[in-house]
Amino acid sequence: MTQDELKELVGKEAVKFIDDGMVVGLGTGSTVKFMVDALGERVKNEGIKITGVPTSDRTAKQARSLGITVKGVDEVDHIDLTIDGADEISSDFQGIKGGGAAHLFEKIVAINSSKVMWIVDESKMVDSLGKFPLPLEVIPYGSGQLFKKLEAKGLHPEFRMTKDGNNVLTDSKNYVIDLHTGKIDNPHELADYLIQQVGVVEQGLFLDMVNTVIVGRSNGPEVLQARP
Amino acid sequence: MTQDELKELVGKEAVKFIDDGMVVGLGTGSTVKFMVDALGERVKNEGIKITGVPTSDRTAKQARSLGITVKGVDEVDHIDLTIDGADEISSDFQGIKGGGAAHLFEKIVAINSSKVMWIVDESKMVDSLGKFPLPLEVIPYGSGQLFKKLEAKGLHPEFRMTKDGNNVLTDSKNYVIDLHTGKIDNPHELADYLIQQVGVVEQGLFLDMVNTVIVGRSNGPEVLQARP
Repeated sequence: MTQDELKELVGKEAVKFIDDGMVVGLGTGSTVKFMVDALGERVKNEGIKITGVPTSDRTAKQARSLGITVKGVDEVDHIDLTIDGADEISSDFQGIKGGGAAHLFEKIVAINSSKVMWIVDESKMVDSLGKFPLPLEVIPYGSGQLFKKLEAKGLHPEFRMTKDGNNVLTDSKNYVIDLHTGKIDNPHELADYLIQQVGVVEQGLFLDMVNTVIVGRSNGPEVLQARP
Repeated sequence: MTQDELKELVGKEAVKFIDDGMVVGLGTGSTVKFMVDALGERVKNEGIKITGVPTSDRTAKQARSLGITVKGVDEVDHIDLTIDGADEISSDFQGIKGGGAAHLFEKIVAINSSKVMWIVDESKMVDSLGKFPLPLEVIPYGSGQLFKKLEAKGLHPEFRMTKDGNNVLTDSKNYVIDLHTGKIDNPHELADYLIQQVGVVEQGLFLDMVNTVIVGRSNGPEVLQARP
């Protein structure tokens, strides 16, 4: 199976966990796109009522076009389940997210959800985190000084740029710095250091947060219970 | 003396600490306004060359109008001295800032400075912090959920609003939540809790940061050495 086929597979598997009437956090990214398509199918075919809380303008647009009611995170009382992708998931179910520059809104939706599910193709499952660059959302003002500090700390920062050579902007109009850390031995310690840095709005380590992971494998989707 | 006279007094005293050629961080607020005026006088009368790194659009505009060269925090190698106001300073020289909604940029400039000086009228000196509401700069997205969480934690949050009933926006287009904490027994613990909250861009406790405090008292400015 191609990577896209694996992504489609887990997207379809994930929506089986959604019940009529649920408030569902909708992540961002290529795997989530397949999941939202599959959810749109269920809404159309089964007539279930779903409220989606999207984590990006992209996902909001897609959900709306498929007849899913879209609400902001502050317009709902609670979120039953958030389904999102991940860029890396370690064997102890810690994650890196932010490859799509949406990890701030993704984290805000995730922490306000009763349950969190990540859906990934098997290439995202790793022994330990750190091969995928760790994204930071940072305030543009002072980001050059912050960059030098991260460099001095040995974290190998790199501003994420567009093809035109401009800084990538998040939905909150902030910059993204990717850290080429290599193997992350202590994710909690690193997360704590990063969030303490003035100018860092959010960092891409999602720790102790996911309940269920669905991995797309050639022989079918594998559902893993990470946490109760 | 009136409060404004005390502010003018410390503003004039502070600029005595500035030498020709220095890169000076310029805070924000009513006391800083007097200091920048006094600095403009020295530039005009003595012909000293000063590079100012302002912490807000307001201060940038004022500095430029007085012939002070203005640069962004990322356009300078280093900042020799930052002079800023404060909303409260405890007897062990910890501070609360953000009454002017500029504490994010103020903190970014402060942490990139060799020395930090706060200038205040005597009403700002307190035994312990917490009478002045503690400001948070927060991402608008999800700020309603964050508010509920802070409320449940007993921190008595309040969105800062304009006279027209809109959310006050910072220079980064974020919201401000003021926490009516009452006496803060452990500022480090509170700072740590707040910065860990997803959606909090920066909190207004400035801890272990100030080197010199100038207090405007009726019998003259008092210069206090807080830290070497």
